[in-house]
Amino acid sequence: MLDAVRAQLVEGGFDLLTMDAVADRSGVHRTTVYRRWRDVGGLLADVLTDATGDDWRPPQTGSLETDLAAVNCEVHAALTTDSSISTALIAASFRSPQAAEALRTFWADRYARCAAIVRRAIDRGEVPADTDPRAVIIAATAPLYHTLVLLRSPADSGLAARSAHQVSVAARAGAFARPSNELMTAGAAGSGMR
Amino acid sequence: MLDAVRAQLVEGGFDLLTMDAVADRSGVHRTTVYRRWRDVGGLLADVLTDATGDDWRPPQTGSLETDLAAVNCEVHAALTTDSSISTALIAASFRSPQAAEALRTFWADRYARCAAIVRRAIDRGEVPADTDPRAVIIAATAPLYHTLVLLRSPADSGLAARSAHQVSVAARAGAFARPSNELMTAGAAGSGMR
Repeated sequence: MLDAVRAQLVEGGFDLLTMDAVADRSGVHRTTVYRRWRDVGGLLADVLTDATGDDWRPPQTGSLETDLAAVNCEVHAALTTDSSISTALIAASFRSPQAAEALRTFWADRYARCAAIVRRAIDRGEVPADTDPRAVIIAATAPLYHTLVLLRSPADSGLAARSAHQVSVAARAGAFARPSNELMTAGAAGSGMR
Repeated sequence: MLDAVRAQLVEGGFDLLTMDAVADRSGVHRTTVYRRWRDVGGLLADVLTDATGDDWRPPQTGSLETDLAAVNCEVHAALTTDSSISTALIAASFRSPQAAEALRTFWADRYARCAAIVRRAIDRGEVPADTDPRAVIIAATAPLYHTLVLLRSPADSGLAARSAHQVSVAARAGAFARPSNELMTAGAAGSGMR
Protein backbone atom coordinates (compact mmCIF):
# COMPACT_ATOMS: atom_id res chain seq x y z
CA MET A 1 0.00 0.00 0.00
CA LEU A 2 2.72 2.50 0.96
CA ASP A 3 4.65 1.33 -2.10
CA ALA A 4 1.68 2.49 -4.16
CA VAL A 5 1.77 5.91 -2.49
CA ARG A 6 5.51 6.27 -3.10
CA ALA A 7 5.22 5.18 -6.73
CA GLN A 8 2.29 7.51 -7.33
CA LEU A 9 4.11 10.43 -5.69
CA VAL A 10 7.35 9.91 -7.58
CA GLU A 11 5.64 9.31 -10.94
CA GLY A 12 2.78 11.78 -10.85
CA GLY A 13 3.83 14.26 -8.21
CA PHE A 14 1.55 15.56 -5.54
CA ASP A 15 -1.06 16.74 -8.06
CA LEU A 16 -1.96 13.18 -8.97
CA LEU A 17 -1.76 11.75 -5.47
CA THR A 18 -5.37 10.99 -4.53
CA MET A 19 -6.90 8.37 -2.30
CA ASP A 20 -8.62 6.80 -5.33
CA ALA A 21 -5.42 6.68 -7.41
CA VAL A 22 -3.61 4.97 -4.56
CA ALA A 23 -6.47 2.50 -4.05
CA ASP A 24 -6.52 1.66 -7.77
CA ARG A 25 -2.77 1.24 -7.94
CA SER A 26 -2.56 -0.95 -4.85
CA GLY A 27 -5.65 -3.02 -5.55
CA VAL A 28 -6.96 -2.33 -2.04
CA HIS A 29 -10.68 -1.54 -1.85
CA ARG A 30 -11.35 2.20 -1.71
CA THR A 31 -13.54 1.87 1.37
CA THR A 32 -10.70 0.18 3.21
CA VAL A 33 -8.24 2.87 2.15
CA TYR A 34 -10.52 5.65 3.36
CA ARG A 35 -11.28 3.87 6.64
CA ARG A 36 -7.61 3.21 7.39
CA TRP A 37 -6.07 6.54 6.32
CA ARG A 38 -8.91 9.07 6.17
CA ASP A 39 -7.07 11.41 3.80
CA VAL A 40 -3.90 12.00 1.79
CA GLY A 41 -2.26 13.53 4.85
CA GLY A 42 -2.65 10.24 6.67
CA LEU A 43 -1.06 8.37 3.79
CA LEU A 44 1.87 10.77 3.62
CA ALA A 45 2.46 10.60 7.36
CA ASP A 46 2.66 6.81 7.15
CA VAL A 47 5.02 6.92 4.16
CA LEU A 48 7.35 9.25 6.03
CA THR A 49 7.29 7.14 9.16
CA ASP A 50 7.84 4.02 7.11
CA ALA A 51 10.81 5.61 5.34
CA THR A 52 12.98 5.29 8.42
CA GLY A 53 11.09 2.49 10.12
CA ASP A 54 8.61 2.83 12.90
CA ASP A 55 11.16 1.43 15.31
CA TRP A 56 13.74 3.99 14.26
CA ARG A 57 15.99 5.12 17.08
CA PRO A 58 18.76 7.69 16.78
CA PRO A 59 22.29 6.34 16.34
CA GLN A 60 24.22 5.71 19.55
CA THR A 61 27.91 6.34 18.92
CA GLY A 62 29.25 7.49 22.28
CA SER A 63 29.35 11.29 22.02
CA LEU A 64 27.00 14.16 21.27
CA GLU A 65 29.01 15.22 18.23
CA THR A 66 29.21 11.81 16.59
CA ASP A 67 25.55 11.07 17.39
CA LEU A 68 24.51 14.35 15.72
CA ALA A 69 26.81 13.67 12.77
CA ALA A 70 25.24 10.24 12.32
CA VAL A 71 21.72 11.74 12.32
CA ASN A 72 22.90 14.35 9.82
CA CYS A 73 24.27 11.65 7.54
CA GLU A 74 20.81 10.06 7.51
CA VAL A 75 19.22 13.43 6.73
CA HIS A 76 21.76 14.03 3.98
CA ALA A 77 21.05 10.61 2.46
CA ALA A 78 17.27 11.10 2.65
CA LEU A 79 17.49 14.47 0.89
CA THR A 80 19.94 13.53 -1.84
CA THR A 81 18.59 10.16 -2.91
CA ASP A 82 16.93 10.02 -6.32
CA SER A 83 13.20 10.74 -6.15
CA SER A 84 13.51 11.68 -2.48
CA ILE A 85 10.25 11.22 -0.56
CA SER A 86 11.38 13.90 1.89
CA THR A 87 11.92 16.49 -0.81
CA ALA A 88 8.64 15.58 -2.54
CA LEU A 89 6.78 16.01 0.74
CA ILE A 90 8.44 19.31 1.54
CA ALA A 91 7.43 20.56 -1.91
CA ALA A 92 3.90 19.22 -1.36
CA SER A 93 3.68 20.93 2.03
CA PHE A 94 3.52 24.32 0.29
CA ARG A 95 0.39 23.27 -1.56
CA SER A 96 -1.43 21.01 0.86
CA PRO A 97 -2.21 21.63 4.52
CA GLN A 98 -2.44 17.82 4.87
CA ALA A 99 1.11 17.36 3.60
CA ALA A 100 2.33 20.17 5.85
CA GLU A 101 0.64 18.54 8.83
CA ALA A 102 2.12 15.14 7.93
CA LEU A 103 5.61 16.66 7.83
CA ARG A 104 5.08 18.48 11.11
CA THR A 105 3.89 15.27 12.77
CA PHE A 106 6.83 13.32 11.36
CA TRP A 107 9.38 15.88 12.51
CA ALA A 108 7.80 16.21 15.97
CA ASP A 109 8.11 12.44 16.36
CA ARG A 110 11.74 12.45 15.18
CA TYR A 111 12.69 15.36 17.47
CA ALA A 112 11.14 13.47 20.38
CA ARG A 113 13.14 10.34 19.56
CA CYS A 114 16.36 12.31 18.98
CA ALA A 115 16.01 13.90 22.41
CA ALA A 116 17.66 10.69 23.65
CA ILE A 117 20.92 11.91 22.08
CA VAL A 118 20.91 15.00 24.25
CA ARG A 119 19.74 13.13 27.36
CA ARG A 120 22.66 10.73 26.99
CA ALA A 121 25.05 13.70 26.60
CA ILE A 122 23.59 15.19 29.79
CA ASP A 123 24.03 11.87 31.59
CA ARG A 124 27.65 11.71 30.46
CA GLY A 125 28.18 15.25 31.73
CA GLU A 126 29.06 16.47 28.22
CA VAL A 127 26.48 19.27 28.26
CA PRO A 128 24.62 21.13 31.04
CA ALA A 129 21.46 19.53 32.41
CA ASP A 130 19.24 22.35 31.13
CA THR A 131 20.25 21.80 27.47
CA ASP A 132 17.21 21.98 25.17
CA PRO A 133 17.12 18.77 23.08
CA ARG A 134 14.77 20.06 20.36
CA ALA A 135 16.81 23.23 19.83
CA VAL A 136 20.01 21.17 19.52
CA ILE A 137 18.52 18.81 16.94
CA ILE A 138 17.00 21.64 14.87
CA ALA A 139 20.25 23.64 14.91
CA ALA A 140 22.26 20.58 13.88
CA THR A 141 20.00 19.57 10.99
CA ALA A 142 18.73 22.97 9.75
CA PRO A 143 21.85 23.91 7.70
CA LEU A 144 21.48 20.65 5.72
CA TYR A 145 17.81 21.33 4.93
CA HIS A 146 18.65 24.94 4.12
CA THR A 147 21.52 24.06 1.78
CA LEU A 148 19.97 21.07 0.04
CA VAL A 149 16.27 21.98 -0.04
CA LEU A 150 16.08 25.77 -0.06
CA LEU A 151 19.41 26.76 -1.67
CA ARG A 152 19.32 23.59 -3.79
CA SER A 153 23.10 23.51 -3.60
CA PRO A 154 25.14 20.36 -3.45
CA ALA A 155 26.18 20.02 0.19
CA ASP A 156 29.73 18.77 0.29
CA SER A 157 29.97 15.55 2.23
CA GLY A 158 31.62 17.32 5.16
CA LEU A 159 28.64 19.60 5.97
CA ALA A 160 26.86 16.96 8.07
CA ALA A 161 29.91 16.52 10.30
CA ARG A 162 30.77 20.22 10.47
CA SER A 163 27.25 21.20 11.55
CA ALA A 164 27.33 18.48 14.20
CA HIS A 165 30.69 19.77 15.41
CA GLN A 166 29.57 23.41 15.57
CA VAL A 167 26.38 22.61 17.47
CA SER A 168 28.10 20.30 19.93
CA VAL A 169 30.77 22.93 20.66
CA ALA A 170 28.03 25.46 21.43
CA ALA A 171 26.01 22.92 23.45
CA ARG A 172 29.02 21.95 25.57
CA ALA A 173 29.55 25.67 26.29
CA GLY A 174 25.97 25.85 27.58
CA ALA A 175 24.61 27.91 24.66
CA PHE A 176 21.57 25.65 24.26
CA ALA A 177 20.20 26.14 27.77
CA ARG A 178 16.40 26.21 27.76
CA PRO A 179 15.09 29.78 27.71
CA SER A 180 14.82 30.95 31.31
CA ASN A 181 11.63 32.47 32.70
CA GLU A 182 13.11 35.85 32.01
CA LEU A 183 13.52 35.06 28.32
CA MET A 184 10.06 33.48 28.17
CA THR A 185 8.57 36.65 29.60
CA ALA A 186 10.48 38.79 27.13
CA GLY A 187 9.21 36.51 24.36
CA ALA A 188 5.61 36.81 25.48
CA ALA A 189 5.93 40.59 25.75
CA GLY A 190 7.49 40.70 22.29
CA SER A 191 4.67 38.84 20.61
CA GLY A 192 2.12 40.91 22.51
CA MET A 193 3.54 44.05 20.96
CA ARG A 194 3.27 42.91 17.37
CA MET B 1 6.50 47.87 -11.83
CA LEU B 2 7.73 45.82 -8.88
CA ASP B 3 4.57 46.85 -7.04
CA ALA B 4 2.64 45.15 -9.84
CA VAL B 5 4.68 41.96 -9.39
CA ARG B 6 4.11 41.96 -5.64
CA ALA B 7 0.39 42.62 -5.99
CA GLN B 8 0.05 39.92 -8.62
CA LEU B 9 2.00 37.43 -6.52
CA VAL B 10 0.07 38.09 -3.33
CA GLU B 11 -3.35 38.14 -5.04
CA GLY B 12 -2.97 35.41 -7.60
CA GLY B 13 -0.09 33.35 -6.32
CA PHE B 14 2.70 32.08 -8.51
CA ASP B 15 0.29 30.36 -10.93
CA LEU B 16 -1.02 33.70 -12.19
CA LEU B 17 2.34 35.49 -12.22
CA THR B 18 3.16 35.94 -15.91
CA MET B 19 5.09 38.60 -17.76
CA ASP B 20 1.92 39.63 -19.59
CA ALA B 21 -0.16 39.88 -16.40
CA VAL B 22 2.50 42.09 -14.81
CA ALA B 23 2.73 44.27 -17.93
CA ASP B 24 -1.05 44.69 -18.02
CA ARG B 25 -1.27 45.50 -14.34
CA SER B 26 1.57 48.01 -14.41
CA GLY B 27 0.64 49.66 -17.72
CA VAL B 28 4.21 49.19 -18.97
CA HIS B 29 4.49 48.01 -22.59
CA ARG B 30 5.01 44.26 -22.88
CA THR B 31 8.03 44.67 -25.13
CA THR B 32 9.69 46.84 -22.51
CA VAL B 33 8.93 44.34 -19.76
CA TYR B 34 10.42 41.47 -21.74
CA ARG B 35 13.49 43.47 -22.73
CA ARG B 36 14.17 44.63 -19.19
CA TRP B 37 13.45 41.42 -17.26
CA ARG B 38 13.59 38.59 -19.81
CA ASP B 39 11.48 36.21 -17.69
CA VAL B 40 9.57 35.76 -14.46
CA GLY B 41 12.78 34.77 -12.69
CA GLY B 42 14.24 38.18 -13.47
CA LEU B 43 11.17 39.90 -12.06
CA LEU B 44 11.27 37.83 -8.89
CA ALA B 45 14.98 38.47 -8.38
CA ASP B 46 14.36 42.22 -8.58
CA VAL B 47 11.42 42.04 -6.18
CA LEU B 48 13.55 40.22 -3.63
CA THR B 49 16.43 42.65 -4.00
CA ASP B 50 14.03 45.56 -3.75
CA ALA B 51 12.49 44.12 -0.58
CA THR B 52 15.54 45.02 1.46
CA GLY B 53 16.89 47.76 -0.78
CA ASP B 54 19.69 47.44 -3.27
CA ASP B 55 21.95 49.38 -0.93
CA TRP B 56 21.21 47.01 1.95
CA ARG B 57 24.14 46.45 4.25
CA PRO B 58 24.15 44.18 7.29
CA PRO B 59 23.59 45.86 10.66
CA GLN B 60 26.73 47.02 12.44
CA THR B 61 26.22 46.74 16.18
CA GLY B 62 29.68 46.12 17.56
CA SER B 63 29.85 42.36 18.08
CA LEU B 64 29.39 39.17 16.10
CA GLU B 65 26.51 38.01 18.28
CA THR B 66 24.51 41.23 18.14
CA ASP B 67 25.18 41.64 14.40
CA LEU B 68 23.87 38.11 13.75
CA ALA B 69 20.89 38.72 16.03
CA ALA B 70 20.05 41.89 14.10
CA VAL B 71 20.18 40.02 10.77
CA ASN B 72 18.00 37.29 12.27
CA CYS B 73 15.44 39.88 13.40
CA GLU B 74 15.19 41.06 9.79
CA VAL B 75 14.79 37.47 8.58
CA HIS B 76 12.13 36.85 11.23
CA ALA B 77 10.24 39.98 10.19
CA ALA B 78 10.45 39.11 6.48
CA LEU B 79 9.09 35.60 7.10
CA THR B 80 6.29 36.52 9.49
CA THR B 81 4.83 39.58 7.79
CA ASP B 82 1.41 39.17 6.17
CA SER B 83 1.65 38.06 2.54
CA SER B 84 5.40 37.58 2.89
CA ILE B 85 7.22 37.89 -0.43
CA SER B 86 9.97 35.62 0.92
CA THR B 87 7.57 32.83 1.80
CA ALA B 88 5.72 33.19 -1.53
CA LEU B 89 9.02 32.91 -3.39
CA ILE B 90 10.19 29.92 -1.41
CA ALA B 91 6.89 28.19 -2.21
CA ALA B 92 7.26 29.19 -5.88
CA SER B 93 10.82 27.84 -5.98
CA PHE B 94 9.47 24.28 -5.72
CA ARG B 95 7.47 24.78 -8.91
CA SER B 96 9.64 27.05 -11.03
CA PRO B 97 13.34 26.76 -11.80
CA GLN B 98 13.27 30.52 -12.45
CA ALA B 99 11.97 31.24 -8.97
CA ALA B 100 14.52 28.84 -7.48
CA GLU B 101 17.30 30.59 -9.39
CA ALA B 102 16.03 34.01 -8.27
CA LEU B 103 16.13 32.88 -4.63
CA ARG B 104 19.59 31.39 -5.02
CA THR B 105 20.87 34.60 -6.59
CA PHE B 106 19.28 36.70 -3.86
CA TRP B 107 20.73 34.58 -1.07
CA ALA B 108 24.19 34.45 -2.67
CA ASP B 109 24.16 38.25 -2.77
CA ARG B 110 23.02 38.52 0.85
CA TYR B 111 25.63 36.01 2.07
CA ALA B 112 28.31 38.00 0.27
CA ARG B 113 27.17 41.22 1.93
CA CYS B 114 26.83 39.57 5.36
CA ALA B 115 30.41 38.35 5.12
CA ALA B 116 31.30 41.84 6.38
CA ILE B 117 29.89 40.81 9.78
CA VAL B 118 32.40 37.98 10.07
CA ARG B 119 35.27 40.03 8.63
CA ARG B 120 34.68 42.69 11.29
CA ALA B 121 34.63 39.99 13.98
CA ILE B 122 37.95 38.68 12.62
CA ASP B 123 39.39 42.23 12.66
CA ARG B 124 38.28 42.65 16.28
CA GLY B 125 39.94 39.35 17.15
CA GLU B 126 36.58 37.86 18.24
CA VAL B 127 36.91 34.82 15.97
CA PRO B 128 39.85 33.06 14.27
CA ALA B 129 41.02 34.46 10.91
CA ASP B 130 40.02 31.28 9.04
CA THR B 131 36.34 31.54 10.07
CA ASP B 132 34.04 30.78 7.12
CA PRO B 133 31.60 33.72 6.73
CA ARG B 134 29.04 31.88 4.60
CA ALA B 135 28.86 28.92 6.98
CA VAL B 136 28.36 31.28 9.94
CA ILE B 137 25.51 33.17 8.25
CA ILE B 138 23.76 29.99 7.10
CA ALA B 139 24.05 28.37 10.54
CA ALA B 140 22.71 31.51 12.23
CA THR B 141 19.69 31.93 9.94
CA ALA B 142 18.82 28.31 9.07
CA PRO B 143 16.93 27.51 12.31
CA LEU B 144 14.59 30.46 11.64
CA TYR B 145 13.84 29.31 8.08
CA HIS B 146 13.44 25.74 9.31
CA THR B 147 11.05 26.67 12.11
CA LEU B 148 8.97 29.27 10.29
CA VAL B 149 8.95 27.96 6.70
CA LEU B 150 9.36 24.17 6.93
CA LEU B 151 7.90 23.39 10.37
CA ARG B 152 5.43 26.29 10.00
CA SER B 153 5.65 26.79 13.74
CA PRO B 154 5.49 30.16 15.42
CA ALA B 155 9.07 31.02 16.33
CA ASP B 156 9.07 32.65 19.73
CA SER B 157 10.65 36.06 19.58
CA GLY B 158 13.76 34.79 21.35
CA LEU B 159 14.79 32.31 18.64
CA ALA B 160 16.56 34.95 16.53
CA ALA B 161 18.76 35.96 19.46
CA ARG B 162 19.35 32.42 20.72
CA SER B 163 20.51 31.18 17.30
CA ALA B 164 22.85 34.17 17.03
CA HIS B 165 24.22 33.39 20.49
CA GLN B 166 24.77 29.69 19.76
CA VAL B 167 26.54 30.33 16.47
CA SER B 168 28.74 33.08 17.87
CA VAL B 169 29.79 30.85 20.80
CA ALA B 170 30.81 28.12 18.34
CA ALA B 171 32.52 30.63 16.01
CA ARG B 172 34.54 32.14 18.86
CA ALA B 173 35.67 28.61 19.76
CA GLY B 174 36.95 28.17 16.20
CA ALA B 175 34.25 25.68 15.14
CA PHE B 176 33.57 27.53 11.87
CA ALA B 177 37.10 27.27 10.48
CA ARG B 178 37.06 26.78 6.71
CA PRO B 179 37.40 23.11 5.80
CA SER B 180 41.09 22.29 5.63
CA ASN B 181 42.65 20.58 2.62
CA GLU B 182 42.34 17.32 4.47
CA LEU B 183 38.57 17.76 4.82
CA MET B 184 38.23 18.91 1.22
CA THR B 185 40.01 15.78 0.07
CA ALA B 186 37.80 13.60 2.24
CA GLY B 187 34.78 15.38 0.74
CA ALA B 188 35.92 14.79 -2.82
CA ALA B 189 36.61 11.15 -2.06
CA GLY B 190 33.19 10.82 -0.46
CA SER B 191 31.29 12.16 -3.44
CA GLY B 192 33.42 10.09 -5.77
CA MET B 193 32.22 6.97 -4.04
CA ARG B 194 28.54 7.74 -4.46
